[in-house]
Amino acid sequence: MHMNIINLDHMSANPLLTEVQEAMIEAIRKNYGNPSSQHKLGDQALAALDKARDSVTRLIHATNPKEVVFTSSGTESVNHAIKGVALAKADKGKHIVTSNIEHNAVLRTLRRLKMMDFHVTSVPVDSLGRVSPGEVEKAIQDDTILVSIMHSNNEIGTIQPIEEIAKITRKKKVIFHTDAVDSVGVVPMDVEKLGVDLLSFASNTFYGPTGVGGLWIRRGTMIWPLLDGGVQENNKRAGTENLLGIIGMGVAADLAQRNMGSRIAHAKKLKAMLLRELPNYITEYVINGDPENGLPHLLSVSIKYIEGESIVLMLDEENIAVSTRSACAAGALQASHVLLSIGRDFADAQGTLVVTFGVDNTEEDVLKFLSALKASVRTLREISPLFPKSAAAAG
Amino acid sequence: MHMNIINLDHMSANPLLTEVQEAMIEAIRKNYGNPSSQHKLGDQALAALDKARDSVTRLIHATNPKEVVFTSSGTESVNHAIKGVALAKADKGKHIVTSNIEHNAVLRTLRRLKMMDFHVTSVPVDSLGRVSPGEVEKAIQDDTILVSIMHSNNEIGTIQPIEEIAKITRKKKVIFHTDAVDSVGVVPMDVEKLGVDLLSFASNTFYGPTGVGGLWIRRGTMIWPLLDGGVQENNKRAGTENLLGIIGMGVAADLAQRNMGSRIAHAKKLKAMLLRELPNYITEYVINGDPENGLPHLLSVSIKYIEGESIVLMLDEENIAVSTRSACAAGALQASHVLLSIGRDFADAQGTLVVTFGVDNTEEDVLKFLSALKASVRTLREISPLFPKSAAAAG
Repeated sequence: MHMNIINLDHMSANPLLTEVQEAMIEAIRKNYGNPSSQHKLGDQALAALDKARDSVTRLIHATNPKEVVFTSSGTESVNHAIKGVALAKADKGKHIVTSNIEHNAVLRTLRRLKMMDFHVTSVPVDSLGRVSPGEVEKAIQDDTILVSIMHSNNEIGTIQPIEEIAKITRKKKVIFHTDAVDSVGVVPMDVEKLGVDLLSFASNTFYGPTGVGGLWIRRGTMIWPLLDGGVQENNKRAGTENLLGIIGMGVAADLAQRNMGSRIAHAKKLKAMLLRELPNYITEYVINGDPENGLPHLLSVSIKYIEGESIVLMLDEENIAVSTRSACAAGALQASHVLLSIGRDFADAQGTLVVTFGVDNTEEDVLKFLSALKASVRTLREISPLFPKSAAAAG
Repeated sequence: MHMNIINLDHMSANPLLTEVQEAMIEAIRKNYGNPSSQHKLGDQALAALDKARDSVTRLIHATNPKEVVFTSSGTESVNHAIKGVALAKADKGKHIVTSNIEHNAVLRTLRRLKMMDFHVTSVPVDSLGRVSPGEVEKAIQDDTILVSIMHSNNEIGTIQPIEEIAKITRKKKVIFHTDAVDSVGVVPMDVEKLGVDLLSFASNTFYGPTGVGGLWIRRGTMIWPLLDGGVQENNKRAGTENLLGIIGMGVAADLAQRNMGSRIAHAKKLKAMLLRELPNYITEYVINGDPENGLPHLLSVSIKYIEGESIVLMLDEENIAVSTRSACAAGALQASHVLLSIGRDFADAQGTLVVTFGVDNTEEDVLKFLSALKASVRTLREISPLFPKSAAAAG
């Protein structure tokens, strides 16, 4: 990445770690071939694939590498999980339960299924963005075939009570998928302890390459492939694998597991500093998400009387990268459904910034961001018709 | 790849060209980021994505780069094309026309759609593996929504009369998809001249990385995404792109276009040599496919009284890589539906080898292959109960 840019948008643009780069470059130079070949040319490829699968299996504390399917993104994993279960179980029922604050991959997949006569109940969240297990239980009907609730939210960071929800889905014998794309590799993950049936994740969340992810499928879960064709991935996902990307993800998974404790501590320190200093730089803002149970590296702040998009552009001029929301929604200029769901009004939702820290950030980055933010907010408020004149001096 | 292995299975295990390797390594080192980011960190990524899209657009002689959607494989492209049209047009009809010799990606995608109440007419091929446009026309019904016929066959190399079939589908106002995964980058391709609506291709066919492909979608074609979520790929395919793979495919596409003439001449020379010399090394075999109109680098030969799998293993011991069929079908030990469809019996189908030449092959490779083949065939026939004793001396 540009060395002179302060990256405070790790959620959308994580750099590749040096070790990941080196492993991928070695694999490119070795020119491994196709893991499904019938001859020696495929042997090294197959060994590399198995090694990466073992690494990812360890990262999510799964017991069987055969339950891990490599995909081309978190989005593919989510589509595979939800469409795959819905279509495989359509004769048992066509009802799905989800939450109001899911990622677009889940939302739009469910919207697609609605066009195929599935129906969806979306449970609300509280002001901290928390799903209530009781609400999920109430939403489950006789014809419910799937519950899909995200592990952590990509805009406000709130981590959901997945274990409690899984107890309900098990009791009710409903398949449970969790979109853990923004959690796996960031916070400890144990699929067995969680008790889910399907878990989606993505490599770039933990400093691996883009375009590669995975879906963990508990053995025995009734699901169709999304990609039909060859017998790759234990017959669960056809298509020649993205071997280079998978090798990168494997190394990134090993590093994420080994360094998770120190990464979390580092992110928490910077986040605490930002929270502590923020009132010295701007006024009239509110922090979004659950302070007790959230992603350690994410901070969402709604700043009154400004537009987040404008702040992003002005900070970009100062070589500071932040985001208003997930990169996947860039270009879709609606107010965030997540922020509206936790009770922010339209204006506050539009004035929201998401900061995500990474291993490369420093305390100096935080101070530079704060100074630039202060200047941008002041400039924007001066031209805002909504900003009360009497408060201008403090803005 | 192993430098000491003679690769005669380029269809399943193409090496990365040096230029492709270098471009990917440069991209890894530059650490481009996410093309959908809202800030500068995504600019270089987006520029690289656009450049690759232009290269691929030129390779297939499309007019508009926005009609090219990057996918994770030829298999994904095929699934996207067929499922996407079928589901988008299901209210207009549920009938699809295909051929008897399609790749597993098409076959199994159609089998999946049959489980969703679609019905399929599969037209036969002649003894050279050719689809008759007249048969396609006869198969089209009032409720036909899609025709999917491969551009070239991956086992016998026969190239289909796609232009003639497209005239029929246009007249009948039926969407036409061609699986050109084994053709794009190997033989000249012009989507406008072909007249199809959808065309699938894959990067590793033309010495790009595995795990990346594309789907060309003619503007205005009614199709659903296979991956729902973010607004990537012009809203046609959600999920953060496999940027490194796409960069590799772009460079591979440029090279394929520039060097296609010399690659074809080189492959034709080696194939002619193999055909000419074969009778001096083995007896009782038959060549499969259309000698007039086939892939220049592919030769399929059915050898009597032996099993292809055994030959592959014996040649592998001699460090020569050949295949019995596509890598995607490895592990699925049925007789090839392609060979049965062109009239081979079960035994001949089982005794078939597919040789695919590449840029790294030499005339010496052909001679080494022939010697090793002769020895293997003799050994296997000696132990075959089917092989007539009187012919043993000649085998």
